[in-house]
Amino acid sequence: MKLGMNFMIFLVLVSCFWLVPTFAAKQQKLRFDENGEFKILQVADMHYANGEKTLCLDVLPSQNASCSDLNTTAFIHRMILAEKPNLIVFTGDNIFGFDSANSAKSMDAAFAPAIASNIPWVAVLGNHDQEGTLSREGVMKYIVGMNNTLSRVKPRKVRSIDGFGNYNLEVGGVRDSDFEKKSVLNLYFLDSGDYSKVAKISGYDWIKPSQQVWFEKTSAKLRKKYIKGHVPQKEAAPGLAYFHIPLPEYASFDSSNMTGVKMETDGGDGISSASVNSGFFTTLVAAGDVKAVFVGHDHINDFCGKLMDIQLCYAGGFGYHAYGQAGWSRRARVVVASLEKTGKGSWGDVESIKTWKRLDDEHLTRIDSEVLWSKSSRGSSG
Amino acid sequence: MKLGMNFMIFLVLVSCFWLVPTFAAKQQKLRFDENGEFKILQVADMHYANGEKTLCLDVLPSQNASCSDLNTTAFIHRMILAEKPNLIVFTGDNIFGFDSANSAKSMDAAFAPAIASNIPWVAVLGNHDQEGTLSREGVMKYIVGMNNTLSRVKPRKVRSIDGFGNYNLEVGGVRDSDFEKKSVLNLYFLDSGDYSKVAKISGYDWIKPSQQVWFEKTSAKLRKKYIKGHVPQKEAAPGLAYFHIPLPEYASFDSSNMTGVKMETDGGDGISSASVNSGFFTTLVAAGDVKAVFVGHDHINDFCGKLMDIQLCYAGGFGYHAYGQAGWSRRARVVVASLEKTGKGSWGDVESIKTWKRLDDEHLTRIDSEVLWSKSSRGSSG
Repeated sequence: MKLGMNFMIFLVLVSCFWLVPTFAAKQQKLRFDENGEFKILQVADMHYANGEKTLCLDVLPSQNASCSDLNTTAFIHRMILAEKPNLIVFTGDNIFGFDSANSAKSMDAAFAPAIASNIPWVAVLGNHDQEGTLSREGVMKYIVGMNNTLSRVKPRKVRSIDGFGNYNLEVGGVRDSDFEKKSVLNLYFLDSGDYSKVAKISGYDWIKPSQQVWFEKTSAKLRKKYIKGHVPQKEAAPGLAYFHIPLPEYASFDSSNMTGVKMETDGGDGISSASVNSGFFTTLVAAGDVKAVFVGHDHINDFCGKLMDIQLCYAGGFGYHAYGQAGWSRRARVVVASLEKTGKGSWGDVESIKTWKRLDDEHLTRIDSEVLWSKSSRGSSG
Repeated sequence: MKLGMNFMIFLVLVSCFWLVPTFAAKQQKLRFDENGEFKILQVADMHYANGEKTLCLDVLPSQNASCSDLNTTAFIHRMILAEKPNLIVFTGDNIFGFDSANSAKSMDAAFAPAIASNIPWVAVLGNHDQEGTLSREGVMKYIVGMNNTLSRVKPRKVRSIDGFGNYNLEVGGVRDSDFEKKSVLNLYFLDSGDYSKVAKISGYDWIKPSQQVWFEKTSAKLRKKYIKGHVPQKEAAPGLAYFHIPLPEYASFDSSNMTGVKMETDGGDGISSASVNSGFFTTLVAAGDVKAVFVGHDHINDFCGKLMDIQLCYAGGFGYHAYGQAGWSRRARVVVASLEKTGKGSWGDVESIKTWKRLDDEHLTRIDSEVLWSKSSRGSSG
């Protein structure tokens, strides 16, 4: 494979010359940087197994010879270098349990570039993570114990909740600005499960009522904090939600109302959601703060579409040992939230949330840039 | 109006000669009777206002002259006499707040036949109950204070839950049978709300995650109790759920797979559910114990249809001050659960759940009898 040697050299270089990132992970509190930006790199469906021994799926014959999990590793390194994100989010199927000889080792390798970068990172689970030597709980607990991660098995102060890997993160305003002590961007991470455990329902799992109640309560609490106290606000701070399996509402889009592509053909509508609707989209609309949802799962869908003022986005498949389409580059999604510049030469609250994707080609080509949400459109869209 | 005078005489007779019903309401514990049966009368959409002064809607010209809320009252009396139910369930829009001069007085009149019968009764709220002189909470609190009702504002031991009128009732097996101390039939009552409070969602309200978590926990607790202890069982006891607004899944039926009719034309599919799916159907399927759901709201739909082994039923409109269709009789739904006869000449657990409707015509014509669920089909249907 043409890129093989370049990648290996690249990996060595990266390991040697890795520099201080924009955000130190030891500092647990996430915060917008001095440029008033907070950037998130989403990595969907790495499907990592055993490194060099695990070969690629669906690549061109010219790539096939030396292509392995190491190409996935190299792609993360390149993305981190190119984008210098403030947070890396792995949205499940991080490892491909079936092919992994040892789930812990697969995770060590899969998350190594994130850990090495010293950038805070989090992960949620997909439907394949638990298919190896560790259970779903075991996988999530292992992740939580890794370096530089802000992942959690379950939210604080919650006695019981379905799934493993439901938690939220607050992103504070710029240091020394009015919003220094407020969370101006709220991130929600949920476990969308693996497969239905209900005999009468086939297919994929769904987000349960207990998770939705936790989300509702958390959203309400954050809203209350935001509209009170120092620099009281009229509305909740914007939120973003990350999980693995798309909601049934992802089926609402076609080429006329999406940015990106839908190339999957599963189930007729090309969306591999649960076969039932568990109401999380309704819960999101009712809460009102989440402006965009980001999932993986369907590797050859990479679109965003807006429904009831919520952007429903895929990242597109990232991993080389995940199915894909030969000749259609592996890709990652970047989201950047930007703060408003205040008259005082300081920074306010979030003004816009933009996204783009990058392809794993020679130039990490940036595609499908778009504004997902902006403060100015808040009024008009209700 | 032809029936007017007959009804008045009938009302007087009923008031004078009302006899002891099969079940004394003061005994709070519901129980199958000595014939191994438990019968529920569902009264949907009385739309009661100010009694004699409140005229009927959508009746034939020949009925119009003297038709009023009193016809609704007479119909309840006749139904109670004809069916002698063990429980009466009012599934919302019990009063029509807009036209009621005094919500409490409207309720006094609307529930009077049930109270007079000395049969235990319960109510949930529709979307019109709070449109008078009392708030939604006020209406439900008033109901709970009335005689012979087992209604509750909220479930025991639950700190916070959306809505007013979420509770459950257990129905014990026959006295002196093995199932005497077990709930062999579980009844769930939920507040399906009134109208969306979310700006971006128009139309009717929906059952919230907090209510679903309560349902899930209650169902799980009842299952646990049922499969343990004395006469341990393999599966949960069957359950029935009552509320006002149909679930979006009610749109799954047409004349090919329903018993009864769908004459509404709202929203194209003839089902006035919320415009969003809040996942309660999924939650019901996942819990597994509820075999049938009973709603009102759409007065000229009266069908049952089975989806994923759950019967979704309407009662059909009952009240004369509610819209309907002239010449299409007001109606009520009856459900009877029957216990299995054991070899010992005693009674076991629930063997079947049957339903029919009765029309408010001269003979209270019984129509659309069908078996909703039977124990013997349990295995084959999963």
